[in-house]
Amino acid sequence: MSGWIAIAGLGPGDEALVTPEVTTALAGASDVIGYIPYVARVAPREGLTLHPSDNRVELDRAAHALELAARGRHVVVVSSGDPGVFAMAAAVFEALEAGPTNWRDIDIRVLPGITAMLAASARAGAPLGHDFCAINLSDNLKPWSLIEKRLRLAAEADFAMAFYNPRSKARPEGFARVLDLLRGVCGDDRPVLFARAVSTPEEQLRIVPLGQATADMADMRTMVIVGSSLTRVIERAIGPILYTPRSASGPAS
Amino acid sequence: MSGWIAIAGLGPGDEALVTPEVTTALAGASDVIGYIPYVARVAPREGLTLHPSDNRVELDRAAHALELAARGRHVVVVSSGDPGVFAMAAAVFEALEAGPTNWRDIDIRVLPGITAMLAASARAGAPLGHDFCAINLSDNLKPWSLIEKRLRLAAEADFAMAFYNPRSKARPEGFARVLDLLRGVCGDDRPVLFARAVSTPEEQLRIVPLGQATADMADMRTMVIVGSSLTRVIERAIGPILYTPRSASGPAS
Repeated sequence: MSGWIAIAGLGPGDEALVTPEVTTALAGASDVIGYIPYVARVAPREGLTLHPSDNRVELDRAAHALELAARGRHVVVVSSGDPGVFAMAAAVFEALEAGPTNWRDIDIRVLPGITAMLAASARAGAPLGHDFCAINLSDNLKPWSLIEKRLRLAAEADFAMAFYNPRSKARPEGFARVLDLLRGVCGDDRPVLFARAVSTPEEQLRIVPLGQATADMADMRTMVIVGSSLTRVIERAIGPILYTPRSASGPAS
Repeated sequence: MSGWIAIAGLGPGDEALVTPEVTTALAGASDVIGYIPYVARVAPREGLTLHPSDNRVELDRAAHALELAARGRHVVVVSSGDPGVFAMAAAVFEALEAGPTNWRDIDIRVLPGITAMLAASARAGAPLGHDFCAINLSDNLKPWSLIEKRLRLAAEADFAMAFYNPRSKARPEGFARVLDLLRGVCGDDRPVLFARAVSTPEEQLRIVPLGQATADMADMRTMVIVGSSLTRVIERAIGPILYTPRSASGPAS
């Protein structure tokens, strides 16, 4: 049989946010590869081999997927969220580029999913309703100086900012520095969303002004969104709404 | 009955990219409101009133949705892509903020969808695999000077850049100026993706170096993604892959 790879996004957690395209690919797979908790979301069945692997082995996992597909297997590489946003798609293409030339004949598709920042944004309102940027705050794969440079320029551009991987045990002080830097540029009043484990039973949302934001409000399951200068909070008895108007001159009135 | 509004993202076009959450909301709706071509994607059925409206009446449409929900109707406001990204969610919240206080008791949910930049990115590979920004190039709602400022700062930050609404009949010269500006900052070799009508029968993908990019490669159905300095093309007999490695020091080798 002719092998293929689908690099599929499982969304933020809720099965109602998995696209039918991804569900169909999983139904046709012979092998599912990915980080342990994501593979655990795929139901076992006869004819399907699950290959859960640990975190931080993305390139090994990617090469494994390519080897299996080159041998004719139907491989789904699973990511949470969207595979093209700080996830497995880039790792597969890095492995492809570095690997044997026959891998370039493999049918590879990327199947998009609901990425964490858009799931978090939807739950809170529409903080990414105007121009925005997405920054991975992990310094595993880039120098801290580049993170700080991007933060300063993004704040100067007045983008709303979505932060992936804000905080880890390995670098607990990094996110506190990010908040300090942003307070220096954006002031204390800018609204910040901490959205943890969105769409799962552990979901928690919190909106605070930047002056009250602290690093311990985020963990590895938290998406952080810092508003632009236009981002607003609508207070309601049933809970606040955080949104950024469509116009750079502010909301309609 | 108690009214509600779901602001739902229909994704880029293919029904296999509509989440089950959105499908469920549509099945429970009494009213569907939106721009004509998006409402046309919803199948008529007994008990469902369709309210298609023209473009550029977002606030009227939003107020209409809120009025219907306040009267107890079950309203789905449809957007293409994701409703929180340059789409209807922000308009509904603008109308809510400007409207009568009883509107603040209405149950409003935003249901995320596959936004155009992530659908386009998936089709081409993973050009948004590292830090990136999303900019709406329409100057209907912001001054051109702000667009240019953001472009310069985003290029200096070395973000990959996704452009919504690159070109319209009303301002055909704007996108040519964007390309000129970017050539001045990024040089001629930066890869650019033009992704038109992704996931529909009219889908067309084109990857060219910035030096060869021209404004007429985009129309109102085109998503444009300009790579960062790290974005790479893998040439293959079966078609190129465009991707940005996960590491700021370049791809694995």
